[in-house]
Amino acid sequence: MKKTLLFSLLTAGISLSAAAQEVIDQAAVQKIREEGLNRSQVMKTAFYLTDVAGPRLSGSPGLKNAQNWAVKELQGYGLVNAKLEPWGKFGKGWQVNKNYAAITVPYYHAIIAIPKAWTSSTKGPVKGDVMLIKIDTLTDLPKYKGQLNGKIVIIDNNAPALVRSKNPDLSRYTDEELAKMAATTPQPAGGRGPRPAGNPQMAAFMAARAKAAAMRGAISSFLQQENVALILSQGRGTDGTVFTTNGASYADTAKTALPELETSGEDFLRIVRLLRAGQKVQMEADVQTQFFTNDLQGYNVIAEIPGTDKKLKEQVVMIGGHFDSWHAGTGATDNAAGSAVMMEAMRILKATGFKPKRTIRIALWSSEEQGLYGSRGYVAAHFGKKDSLKAEQSKVSAYYNLDNGTGKIRGVYLQGNAAVGPIFQSYLEPFKDLGATTVTISNTGGTDHQSFDAVNIPGFQFIQDGMDYNTRTHHSNQDTYDRLVEDDLKQAATIVASFVYHTAQRAEMLPRKEAPKATGTN
Amino acid sequence: MKKTLLFSLLTAGISLSAAAQEVIDQAAVQKIREEGLNRSQVMKTAFYLTDVAGPRLSGSPGLKNAQNWAVKELQGYGLVNAKLEPWGKFGKGWQVNKNYAAITVPYYHAIIAIPKAWTSSTKGPVKGDVMLIKIDTLTDLPKYKGQLNGKIVIIDNNAPALVRSKNPDLSRYTDEELAKMAATTPQPAGGRGPRPAGNPQMAAFMAARAKAAAMRGAISSFLQQENVALILSQGRGTDGTVFTTNGASYADTAKTALPELETSGEDFLRIVRLLRAGQKVQMEADVQTQFFTNDLQGYNVIAEIPGTDKKLKEQVVMIGGHFDSWHAGTGATDNAAGSAVMMEAMRILKATGFKPKRTIRIALWSSEEQGLYGSRGYVAAHFGKKDSLKAEQSKVSAYYNLDNGTGKIRGVYLQGNAAVGPIFQSYLEPFKDLGATTVTISNTGGTDHQSFDAVNIPGFQFIQDGMDYNTRTHHSNQDTYDRLVEDDLKQAATIVASFVYHTAQRAEMLPRKEAPKATGTN
Repeated sequence: MKKTLLFSLLTAGISLSAAAQEVIDQAAVQKIREEGLNRSQVMKTAFYLTDVAGPRLSGSPGLKNAQNWAVKELQGYGLVNAKLEPWGKFGKGWQVNKNYAAITVPYYHAIIAIPKAWTSSTKGPVKGDVMLIKIDTLTDLPKYKGQLNGKIVIIDNNAPALVRSKNPDLSRYTDEELAKMAATTPQPAGGRGPRPAGNPQMAAFMAARAKAAAMRGAISSFLQQENVALILSQGRGTDGTVFTTNGASYADTAKTALPELETSGEDFLRIVRLLRAGQKVQMEADVQTQFFTNDLQGYNVIAEIPGTDKKLKEQVVMIGGHFDSWHAGTGATDNAAGSAVMMEAMRILKATGFKPKRTIRIALWSSEEQGLYGSRGYVAAHFGKKDSLKAEQSKVSAYYNLDNGTGKIRGVYLQGNAAVGPIFQSYLEPFKDLGATTVTISNTGGTDHQSFDAVNIPGFQFIQDGMDYNTRTHHSNQDTYDRLVEDDLKQAATIVASFVYHTAQRAEMLPRKEAPKATGTN
Repeated sequence: MKKTLLFSLLTAGISLSAAAQEVIDQAAVQKIREEGLNRSQVMKTAFYLTDVAGPRLSGSPGLKNAQNWAVKELQGYGLVNAKLEPWGKFGKGWQVNKNYAAITVPYYHAIIAIPKAWTSSTKGPVKGDVMLIKIDTLTDLPKYKGQLNGKIVIIDNNAPALVRSKNPDLSRYTDEELAKMAATTPQPAGGRGPRPAGNPQMAAFMAARAKAAAMRGAISSFLQQENVALILSQGRGTDGTVFTTNGASYADTAKTALPELETSGEDFLRIVRLLRAGQKVQMEADVQTQFFTNDLQGYNVIAEIPGTDKKLKEQVVMIGGHFDSWHAGTGATDNAAGSAVMMEAMRILKATGFKPKRTIRIALWSSEEQGLYGSRGYVAAHFGKKDSLKAEQSKVSAYYNLDNGTGKIRGVYLQGNAAVGPIFQSYLEPFKDLGATTVTISNTGGTDHQSFDAVNIPGFQFIQDGMDYNTRTHHSNQDTYDRLVEDDLKQAATIVASFVYHTAQRAEMLPRKEAPKATGTN
């Protein structure tokens, strides 16, 4: 997921009725539980999406391979209309072909460091002195002129000592935390709407941001002119865990950026301490990355179980999660987990012989990490914009999303849609024994259900136990298969399948919020 | 430290009197506290021993460089007789000159992996298929004959999924735990003496161990004959942390062993899962290690503050800790921390202008990690063996050791010497505000005070907070400067200096246990 934003809703005053009169098909639930809990394929799917496919960075050949695999796999389940559907122009693909760096003076030590996404290659294997440079304003640049040729450069960020957590890496919601979420009431006003344009704080913020971006651009150009060999920056994380980002634009028109390694905190700070103490540090490195411009298009994976009710089959229940990942790990919790669970939910529904009234459609998005682009593109193409909706918009009952890591489902965010509260309470009822109990009026942000919510299609993300998402895996080199918790993924797929089943069979589509509301960007 | 062994003592029944009549020089304590807490140099010393010196593996040039630095530094403090003193023959030096490995099929991914100490080099950069081989008995070997040439080999160890801790990495002793340690009573009998030779369990254990060693040797010879390019094994640890060991003998007569990388759990298991699923995995690697045979001798760093009392200056108070480390990190907690604290304690004593009655001697041992060899060699040369003691043995009042990581001092192990209990309770009295309160009759093992205890010289290791010693740093690639807790090292140096001060000035030498007792082999 892009980032986590939890905030309460603008709408006021509709309380969640505890009593719910939804029809729950207990026989169907039992079949779904048996298939999902006892004959699960979710870990096999997750294995293919992580270990076999590798990183699935937007636009990369790795993503395309995994998408093609998913299409075939979904066809294998018996789904129809399985395809890669373009959602618009993304930009350049990129992958790492070689990644090696070590200090060689004062002694040899290979470092843990990851190329920032979309940065370029070193000019073959390079060797050179490491230089710590201090740039507070652009007037600091000229003093380094002529001094950086072939150097490995660190821009001094006044990095403090590593702060190490006193808490466990792994966490699950406590009963108390869940009760608090359930008791959240809609906020009377405020929230995360667009800030008023005339707001002086906002203007100052935007100006500062623009200035910082301009400064970064000027520094970057200067370092390129000066023929710097490689940049080292500090990656967040400790103990060998490195959280990663991109270091350059993926736009096909973007200039290439210098090679840059996000370095483990320990290795980075060791080098910085040595340099600050006046010790000579030399390094050798060989970083080779590759760009792909043969296809700038972005794609989503789409597949369906067609509806069978003459009247209702034109209506759709959608599920999905983003399929793209960052590049340092294999995107296991972000978001092979959600993708595998959603694929497994479809498999469960097919395997139980379900003939849904409404059509059920899975969408595995791409370029979520860059701004929910895959889901936004899909929504724009099929359902329109909030001020110019297409007819198809009225036919989608719900979109269910999963993108908060490997943790099991503990409930669901209503995203301010109070009318669905009692319905979801009924849907959760058969899964209390599996720890899924909580309905909260709250919004959660940062992922693809927002694209649907933005055009007033009921879009939901489940509440999931956090596990080590924020402490270890989110965009890090440690987001690997090892973090996946089998029982949690089985539980999630089972619950999602049941939600989808009941939404597909329900007499009415799910109630909608009164009018489209922007829930903010991203 | 080699390993942690905590067990109660053989001797019976001497209770620790709460009342203590030791003379505490409050003015001296105040000066020591001021120097140790407000003008500390301990982090600077630790920085040189870790970041600047790098790994200090026994016999390596890195260790020798650091030892030479320490001698000069101790001279700079004003210590005398500072020198490298040989303790006997160690074996080959070894260091890593290049360490690179990556999977290249099914996609590129550089792995986190550390050469096992004293293993050899790849034949330049190598590329090859990774093979998972299964060897339950030696009769499994022939089936791989002719198949392993140039291959990268994993011996299938039936590795389970990674188990990730639910506890925090960092820990300190609770009041309750300390109270329990303080309340420990000497055990009436038993303990860790040598096992009777006729013990059938012991015979079976020794036979099984010999058989396992023979099997390892046979497998190793086979893999070498078959021209295997590289071995990958699983290193303990998660999240990028890799605990390391040696993979071959350091004896100058030892045959070279194949290059072998201890691989992070995540990277290792990814490869194993792929191979088990029948997926092709290829790797490239370049591992270059270097052996040093020009000097097979082992050395300790020795320096003194000479005694000034005509009668007592022939008597000695010793302090120390081991100076050697493993190779993957910079041995910050094991044991640059203890070495820096002990050097700092000497500096504090000199800086406060202290003229001790007895001579104070610091010893920074080497080859502790291979079996306490530096301290054992020193003890044998100066104090004899337990059945043939030398005269010098009678002149050492105490040996204080520090080797349990970066955690502050919480008290001291009496090592079964109940008579020193009241004395140490008095010595701790001025440091209650710094958290050092506990005296326990217990033994602790695994480090160099045992070499003194073995010849009935009172040898003590302090109780230290565990911090992340067992979870992250002990022999791992994460044992770096970042783990050092400045306040804790300052506290420890201050307390050690005061212990040494009072031991040096005391009317009598410290009481001894009745007879030498073997505290077990390591």
